[in-house]
Amino acid sequence: MNRRMVVFLLSRILFFEALLMLPSVVVGLIYREAITWCFLPPIGVLLLLGLFGLKKPKNTAIYAREGFLVVAAAWILMSLFGAIPFWLSGGFDSFWDCIFEIVSGFTTTGASILGSVEQLPRCILFWRSFSHWIGGMGVLVFVLAVMPMSGERSMHLMRAEVPGPVVGKLVPRMRDTAKILYAVYTAMTALLVILLAAGGMPLFDSICHAFGAAGTGGFSVKNAGIAFYNSAYIDIVLSVFMLLFGVNFSLYHLILIGKWKNAVRSEELHVYFGIVLTAIILITANTFSRAQGFGLTLRHAFFQVSSIITTTGYATVDFNAWPMFSKMILLLLMFIGACAGSTGGGIKVSRLVIFSKASRQEVRKLLHPRTVSVVRMEGKPIGPDLLRSTLTFFVMYIGCLAIGVILLSLGESSFDTNFSAVLACLSNIGPGIGLVGPTGNYAFFSNGAKILLSLEMLAGRLELFPIIMLFSPLTYRRKAN
Amino acid sequence: MNRRMVVFLLSRILFFEALLMLPSVVVGLIYREAITWCFLPPIGVLLLLGLFGLKKPKNTAIYAREGFLVVAAAWILMSLFGAIPFWLSGGFDSFWDCIFEIVSGFTTTGASILGSVEQLPRCILFWRSFSHWIGGMGVLVFVLAVMPMSGERSMHLMRAEVPGPVVGKLVPRMRDTAKILYAVYTAMTALLVILLAAGGMPLFDSICHAFGAAGTGGFSVKNAGIAFYNSAYIDIVLSVFMLLFGVNFSLYHLILIGKWKNAVRSEELHVYFGIVLTAIILITANTFSRAQGFGLTLRHAFFQVSSIITTTGYATVDFNAWPMFSKMILLLLMFIGACAGSTGGGIKVSRLVIFSKASRQEVRKLLHPRTVSVVRMEGKPIGPDLLRSTLTFFVMYIGCLAIGVILLSLGESSFDTNFSAVLACLSNIGPGIGLVGPTGNYAFFSNGAKILLSLEMLAGRLELFPIIMLFSPLTYRRKAN
Repeated sequence: MNRRMVVFLLSRILFFEALLMLPSVVVGLIYREAITWCFLPPIGVLLLLGLFGLKKPKNTAIYAREGFLVVAAAWILMSLFGAIPFWLSGGFDSFWDCIFEIVSGFTTTGASILGSVEQLPRCILFWRSFSHWIGGMGVLVFVLAVMPMSGERSMHLMRAEVPGPVVGKLVPRMRDTAKILYAVYTAMTALLVILLAAGGMPLFDSICHAFGAAGTGGFSVKNAGIAFYNSAYIDIVLSVFMLLFGVNFSLYHLILIGKWKNAVRSEELHVYFGIVLTAIILITANTFSRAQGFGLTLRHAFFQVSSIITTTGYATVDFNAWPMFSKMILLLLMFIGACAGSTGGGIKVSRLVIFSKASRQEVRKLLHPRTVSVVRMEGKPIGPDLLRSTLTFFVMYIGCLAIGVILLSLGESSFDTNFSAVLACLSNIGPGIGLVGPTGNYAFFSNGAKILLSLEMLAGRLELFPIIMLFSPLTYRRKAN
Repeated sequence: MNRRMVVFLLSRILFFEALLMLPSVVVGLIYREAITWCFLPPIGVLLLLGLFGLKKPKNTAIYAREGFLVVAAAWILMSLFGAIPFWLSGGFDSFWDCIFEIVSGFTTTGASILGSVEQLPRCILFWRSFSHWIGGMGVLVFVLAVMPMSGERSMHLMRAEVPGPVVGKLVPRMRDTAKILYAVYTAMTALLVILLAAGGMPLFDSICHAFGAAGTGGFSVKNAGIAFYNSAYIDIVLSVFMLLFGVNFSLYHLILIGKWKNAVRSEELHVYFGIVLTAIILITANTFSRAQGFGLTLRHAFFQVSSIITTTGYATVDFNAWPMFSKMILLLLMFIGACAGSTGGGIKVSRLVIFSKASRQEVRKLLHPRTVSVVRMEGKPIGPDLLRSTLTFFVMYIGCLAIGVILLSLGESSFDTNFSAVLACLSNIGPGIGLVGPTGNYAFFSNGAKILLSLEMLAGRLELFPIIMLFSPLTYRRKAN
């Protein structure tokens, strides 16, 4: 293992985290909040640690193993340092709560241990929401965008952080790909801020909620969440933008370079919108009541479906009080998640498409054993290796869910609470059903449970492998066997 | 499609069902029950339908497609006719209830819609328990054992009915394999009857409970189930035998021909007993109370673990009242199920072994992309096709579970009830948690829910494909595409 290079990369990333804390300091200064000082110690320490990254090692060769370890270690270290401002601010009960909250932020989960957020200082609220925005597109993608690095090497890092079964380069140079992604991401976020502010939402709230929607996170600056504004315009703008942030960003790149025909032909996109539409229809039919009226029912269904499938987790209604059928539809959406290459979590629509095609192929093979058939996706054949690893991913995903639910059940909550809490963390959604529904929070869990759920969030955001490898003896063996 | 051959095989099977009803008639005559007449109409109809099977078609060629269709149709037809005695006996509320009960019997699920069974006539109780014994080893395996058929053809039938990722022949001729399986099965059942009777259980009860344990079914002739006898001896004998019926029967064949060393070296066997032991230890620790004492706690843990992992479903204690952690362990065992090639249901231990090895291999491949590694099981390499189809099976299993839970949630039961009801039916266990726990039953579900759960039971028993193919347009297309 190239330890020097691992240390170099990690200190670079921590240096960038120091820079990423500066906007929160600016917010604190604007609102003249004395508590802003609590960002200074972590910034100081991070800058100091960044000194290790001043000199690039001679041997910059890193392989897959280093890539995964750097990503896992980077996310854990960033969370540890990112929790310090929360802790120093005094608004949290314990350091574990701060860890849970910032992991939930960076992984764009949006699960909170706070019963009330409105009493928090603005600089802390900003950092909380900004962590969604940072985590959404990925910290390493950001670092890649600003740091020169040879193509093949950086692929290892990118592959470990960007969600989806296939990670492609948009353009030949990795660094340019990262820049394009961040440019699209920033432009869309800015547009959302403008639209929200135009709808009467205060600018600070607009920025924070735009961060939450862009990263598909879900932290709000109001206790009642988006329901606070009680505005059809805001609901619809957010519903549409959450859906847009759940689309594979490479499609936006295709549109930008004029290949919009290729973009709209995307198979994953069709299935994604198909699922959204079906879910909205089913939930509208299931939750309709005369008293509420058709318009409001549809609006709530649209918002909740859009929020859950993109794994954002904002809520305009307490869906925990919905009929069981609608809750189950949402639970299914929590599994599925958004498109690959988006900021959303979950298993991803593209994997779902691969699963259903693999199942079809299996039935066909059993019926006609001599027929040769190939699974195709977006017009390209899916090789046996990719097919196998996508299927194995599903087994491991369910494994992570099962282990989480079993361990969490040591705490005696009900099955729906435990199951949906683990699923909501693993799929980076935030609210589940039962005690962790939209009106609840994660405060009542024990510290052990909070650590477990933090690991599930990290595993979900990094698509399992970096976190699994961190704990696997296979990673630290000298020789492959 | 060779329709004549399909009709021929189905009428042969229905003819055998008529013969399989005769022991129940004998029981009715022994106990001088007037209600025994209710077996005569179905026997008459089945014998008549059996006339279609008198003349073997000239062209006996059948392929995989016919094999799956015959198996699916056979199980559904057998259930329709098998439900008639229940219906005529007048002890059931509706014909749907009768269907549910007999499907639960044949699929060795053991889920019941009866609140009380003790008032039922003995011939009906016997038929109910005997259906477990028939379904355990498989109806077609039975037909194969007594019907001459060319080897390759019968493989198609056997593969569709015998559980597990790989179906091997024990001996070159399929018919002899079927005979060996049934001989072992019958001998072990007879031994269990003797041991139970020796422990003071009435002979009739011993026979019925032995059928339930041998087929890993779970129907009892007492309302309180096995707890009725309140005997440590009976509990332990049943615990041991349930575990034995959950072992791959080919291992017993190996022992019979003197290759016991190969049998005890079986990887699946080690994992199976490893899981059982771990579950017993965890549940004993979790449910221990001074008042109950260590011995009784251990005995209950042993019985329940043995009953659930083998998917039998007998209970000596209301495990629904256990702490959440123990319930979750049981829920996990419901997923896993027994060994391949046993009478038990679930995903099967051998598949679990393949999953964990595939996951390990995946991690290894990501860490060392250039290393070539092969997944091995029982010393033999697992080919990419088998690996892919095993993984796809898991995706489809979870799919069947998810669809079931979502549809069942239209009925407004709680999440634990719905989830465990579908899982308990799909894995052919019987009792779940919540309202369908050991002290509850399935009577409260709507007719639609009962049909859904019946299909889940059939899908689980036949390992998904025959039932999926019955509904798939791919099956009825002329050409493969």
